[in-house]
Amino acid sequence: MSGQNDYWWRGPVAPLDAEATQAAAERQAQLIKPPGALGKLESLAIRLAGMQGRALPGVERVRIVLFAGDHGVVAEAVSAFPQSVTTAMLNCFAGGGSAISVLARELGADLEVLNLGTVEDVAVPGVIDARLGPGTANFTAAPAMSEHQVARALNVGRHAAERARLADTDILIGGEMGIGNTTSATALACALLGEAAENLAGPGAGLDGSGVRHKIEVIRRALDFHAPHLSDPLEVLRRLGGYEIAGLAGAYIAAARMGLPVLVDGYICTAAALVAERLCPGCRVWFIFGHASAEPGHVRMLSALQADALLDLGLRLGEGSGAAVALPLLRLACRLHAGMATFAEAGVAGKTP
Amino acid sequence: MSGQNDYWWRGPVAPLDAEATQAAAERQAQLIKPPGALGKLESLAIRLAGMQGRALPGVERVRIVLFAGDHGVVAEAVSAFPQSVTTAMLNCFAGGGSAISVLARELGADLEVLNLGTVEDVAVPGVIDARLGPGTANFTAAPAMSEHQVARALNVGRHAAERARLADTDILIGGEMGIGNTTSATALACALLGEAAENLAGPGAGLDGSGVRHKIEVIRRALDFHAPHLSDPLEVLRRLGGYEIAGLAGAYIAAARMGLPVLVDGYICTAAALVAERLCPGCRVWFIFGHASAEPGHVRMLSALQADALLDLGLRLGEGSGAAVALPLLRLACRLHAGMATFAEAGVAGKTP
Repeated sequence: MSGQNDYWWRGPVAPLDAEATQAAAERQAQLIKPPGALGKLESLAIRLAGMQGRALPGVERVRIVLFAGDHGVVAEAVSAFPQSVTTAMLNCFAGGGSAISVLARELGADLEVLNLGTVEDVAVPGVIDARLGPGTANFTAAPAMSEHQVARALNVGRHAAERARLADTDILIGGEMGIGNTTSATALACALLGEAAENLAGPGAGLDGSGVRHKIEVIRRALDFHAPHLSDPLEVLRRLGGYEIAGLAGAYIAAARMGLPVLVDGYICTAAALVAERLCPGCRVWFIFGHASAEPGHVRMLSALQADALLDLGLRLGEGSGAAVALPLLRLACRLHAGMATFAEAGVAGKTP
Repeated sequence: MSGQNDYWWRGPVAPLDAEATQAAAERQAQLIKPPGALGKLESLAIRLAGMQGRALPGVERVRIVLFAGDHGVVAEAVSAFPQSVTTAMLNCFAGGGSAISVLARELGADLEVLNLGTVEDVAVPGVIDARLGPGTANFTAAPAMSEHQVARALNVGRHAAERARLADTDILIGGEMGIGNTTSATALACALLGEAAENLAGPGAGLDGSGVRHKIEVIRRALDFHAPHLSDPLEVLRRLGGYEIAGLAGAYIAAARMGLPVLVDGYICTAAALVAERLCPGCRVWFIFGHASAEPGHVRMLSALQADALLDLGLRLGEGSGAAVALPLLRLACRLHAGMATFAEAGVAGKTP
């Protein structure tokens, strides 16, 4: 890794706007309701105010960036689906029939799809070709990525976030597609949190009990293989991550550096957010978490990020779908914040119990 | 109570459409995602299909009916707010500055506000005047309502649901306003579920610990006073309920009889749904529950209704706000259901793990 962009991801993170935060909190206290009666919708509006530097925040312009890549560890039979599904889904994202395509349309969000490295060597119309290789290496026996590849993947994410910023995006949603990527995400979480695989691994997109036990064994082997090199978060990402996870982490960090709020999806994206926080401490203040995953490792990662998720609807699809489904909550939080009358406007004495 | 409308609320409930349910379930199984990967969004789409009798359901046309009334039990100092707030809030609902007014605008929903009996004798422009008295009686020492009043309140709700149906409403949301109504809702839940007040009572809109202990004592006294008469759910409603809760129950039952889906709000509305289910067994299949309340009695009522709530965002406002905030989830569930490609359309083999 060389050049003047070296380690751009180390920060600094944009500061929150304390004045806008304060103004939003004061406004919430004056709105015609018992204090705190709108629960998390109040804290969301106040957080967004601090992020956007305005007392009346808004999340109308939304960019969803979907990062796709294949995983060499799939050779260890860790997924219920064949690797060809990654490429098939790229067609589906571009064609408009995927869940995230439907959600983007309904929410009026831009959807940008990036192929960071599928096994199949096919250019998909409508998908940005940013391929770094035919999938990552099988990380049970080698680093998943070269130094060059991980740096480029982070940069692909950075540039996606910068494009979103240039488009006046109010909030960025990252999505992912990559058969086998819950295995990579779990390995990352184990390495970064010092947890054993059996504490974090789950069924992903559809493994049964013996499948999960096998996945745990594969992750254990990988953690053993790379054990001497797991103190540095960049090395953890390079050795156990995936192109799409590195892309997400790069996008999240770049967003935090530019002061662009991020709405994080479920398990894979939270692993990327954890990587981002380790590479660029403090960037997590820019992250709002949309959906709780059923994967046992998710709550542990959220706890390490001192966060909780807005929704828990049993989604386990990825693609950014859980974050997208949470977006209306943020929008309603902003509309309530801006549109409700104050006690003074309503001519009602604001009695605080 | 007399006349040919006697006991209209005893049913029968409209049947769900088994064919549409089946067609929707089959469609879900063909959509391009792992089976079940959209979690509750899948079951919502399938349930709505069965309710609306079409394989591709939709919840675009929404009617929010807000029932307001005052409670005589407020004389026992069970609320952190003065009773005048009920009327003040009617002005706010009509004026557009309340939370539910903002939500209705954002969601493109109709909002109808009904005054079933405030203490203050003021006609509020924009509010339908359906007053049955200057608040209910203090139910620690008398039935809250006369037989005539409870029947009329149920009918007010029925007619509101019928108006919604005539307006081609896809889904009905009930809201409520009434200082003191968590006390009434808790007394109803205790009587209908055979629970002690201390197991169900909570802080409502803002009581502290000693306030909650006092509220428990008040509910205990009321339950003792009415003990000989609590085997009949109509008598339970009459003695311990409120005008707005009876109105809600009437609207819910009428909706279930007409086959109009209902999106139920939090604590008060769930008490009304429980009353509805006891008056008209089976009507609960028409109810979707939007938001979990922090009140300890809510989970107990939901469990009795064999239901769970979609959201848990810490809202404790009432007005129908938790149901309104959940509406976008139902809309996205329907759009995903209708808009996603099938495996066949996408040219992908639908491998089931």
